[in-house]
Amino acid sequence: MTLPERKIGGPEASEAGQTPLAIVCGGGSFPAAVAEAVSRSGRPLVMFGINGWADPNVAERYSHHWVALGQVGRLVRLARLEGCRQAILIGTVLRPPLTKIRLDWPTIRAVPRILRAFRGGDDQLLKGVAGIIEDAGLQIVGLDQVAPEIFVPEGVLARRQPTERDKADIARALAVIAALGPFDVGQAAIVADNHVLAVEGVEGTDNMLARIAEMRGQRRVTARLGTGVLVKSPKPGQDRRFDLPAIGPHTVENAARAGLAGVAVTAGSTLVADPMEVIASANRSDIFMVGVSEAASP
Amino acid sequence: MTLPERKIGGPEASEAGQTPLAIVCGGGSFPAAVAEAVSRSGRPLVMFGINGWADPNVAERYSHHWVALGQVGRLVRLARLEGCRQAILIGTVLRPPLTKIRLDWPTIRAVPRILRAFRGGDDQLLKGVAGIIEDAGLQIVGLDQVAPEIFVPEGVLARRQPTERDKADIARALAVIAALGPFDVGQAAIVADNHVLAVEGVEGTDNMLARIAEMRGQRRVTARLGTGVLVKSPKPGQDRRFDLPAIGPHTVENAARAGLAGVAVTAGSTLVADPMEVIASANRSDIFMVGVSEAASP
Repeated sequence: MTLPERKIGGPEASEAGQTPLAIVCGGGSFPAAVAEAVSRSGRPLVMFGINGWADPNVAERYSHHWVALGQVGRLVRLARLEGCRQAILIGTVLRPPLTKIRLDWPTIRAVPRILRAFRGGDDQLLKGVAGIIEDAGLQIVGLDQVAPEIFVPEGVLARRQPTERDKADIARALAVIAALGPFDVGQAAIVADNHVLAVEGVEGTDNMLARIAEMRGQRRVTARLGTGVLVKSPKPGQDRRFDLPAIGPHTVENAARAGLAGVAVTAGSTLVADPMEVIASANRSDIFMVGVSEAASP
Repeated sequence: MTLPERKIGGPEASEAGQTPLAIVCGGGSFPAAVAEAVSRSGRPLVMFGINGWADPNVAERYSHHWVALGQVGRLVRLARLEGCRQAILIGTVLRPPLTKIRLDWPTIRAVPRILRAFRGGDDQLLKGVAGIIEDAGLQIVGLDQVAPEIFVPEGVLARRQPTERDKADIARALAVIAALGPFDVGQAAIVADNHVLAVEGVEGTDNMLARIAEMRGQRRVTARLGTGVLVKSPKPGQDRRFDLPAIGPHTVENAARAGLAGVAVTAGSTLVADPMEVIASANRSDIFMVGVSEAASP
């Protein structure tokens, strides 16, 4: 069995790193990519699909169980029975209405904490859920520990190169994202010719890009076609164990439709589910695609 | 002739304050409200409608001229002939494509400055234009000097009162707007239950509210109906002579459609074209409407 070379922690953590990994799966294409990467690394895994969110075709490709949102007790009990000591949370679970959540006893005991978490942004909500899972006996680990290859690497990834102008727009967008760090909002922004066009809220990146495409059609965005960048980056202080920014081929296609010059993401902390298809898509649309180093972020 | 009691500056400025006011008019309903307020104050005025933007029914109600965007030389020459020494810029002129601008000689000499201004946000663009007009011989004054009654006053303006929860959301939205100050973007944000839902970019307030209404319909915003606030406030360091945030009855109606509890704006620096209709609209929709003091902003 091949183990990742990086040490996760002390001797106990290293031992935990040899147990099967519990992958708690929401929707989207990332759970499949993560499961494949973990599987390739040789580590056994058990999928825990969240009812209504996880894709059965993905979850059921491996040893798996289904859990409802709020069934933290059941999740942890099943995971421990499978020999798991570590878990990751991956995939989308849109902020659910409270009425849709089915609570089991360990979760009900944590209700005051969950309500506190619900009052904040998504990051706080996930931190709250992770804390409850950890207290129940499963360590939540980061994706960088179990599937480092699903992160965007540093450098220019497709054919087109960013210009000096593009680089200045990237720096400005990174600064906007950094300024919003304390507010648990905005892992993405669009800047063209030094002008901040959009900041992402709960609508998500694709909706933000669609807005720019529409306003360009209406001449409400007058920056020349082929100028402007989409930048995605985790908020400063973002807990790297969950809610990391992610891109896929549709991000690149939507950026092209919005008339942008390219897409920049923070290397090592932005997920990409299908890197080859992302690069092919950037080349087809002739837009640039770069991983920028976090150290270079202002 | 009744003069405003507030002193504008030294003796020269006070003398200039007695000359007819040049009102450079873009689109929207504010030029009419400003012209009425100035007229009520007893000061003579001359309207300079911007071709394609100003409403002829408003401009032609007073002494008036028409100017094209970029004809700063013609504007200043005509204003001086009318005896004007001071001007205000009011109304919307969406960031125009460079090709739509007709330049006259004084403007052409300022082209490098205009291009520099074009590379920044809207605020920088307006500062650039104002600087060119001032260099050509017209002082740009603030609306607070000539029509103070078109600003939202402090306090609760309609029937409904904001709750403690609403006040906390207002404080958070003001903090988001303050954090974005350096970037010349975002004079508005929406926060519900401490969760930042949206930050305004170039799309404008109505589009931002429409987005929240739509996401509420799709259950992507799960905050209870009747929670959440829209907050509008000038960016810190905003030049108070132009581009101040503005609200009207449609802002209140759109906030109600987005399921919000209310609207808060900075007192004394947010324009309202039709205050009675704004209050009536808030009462009809049962949402609160408050002017918050800038001193209270975090």
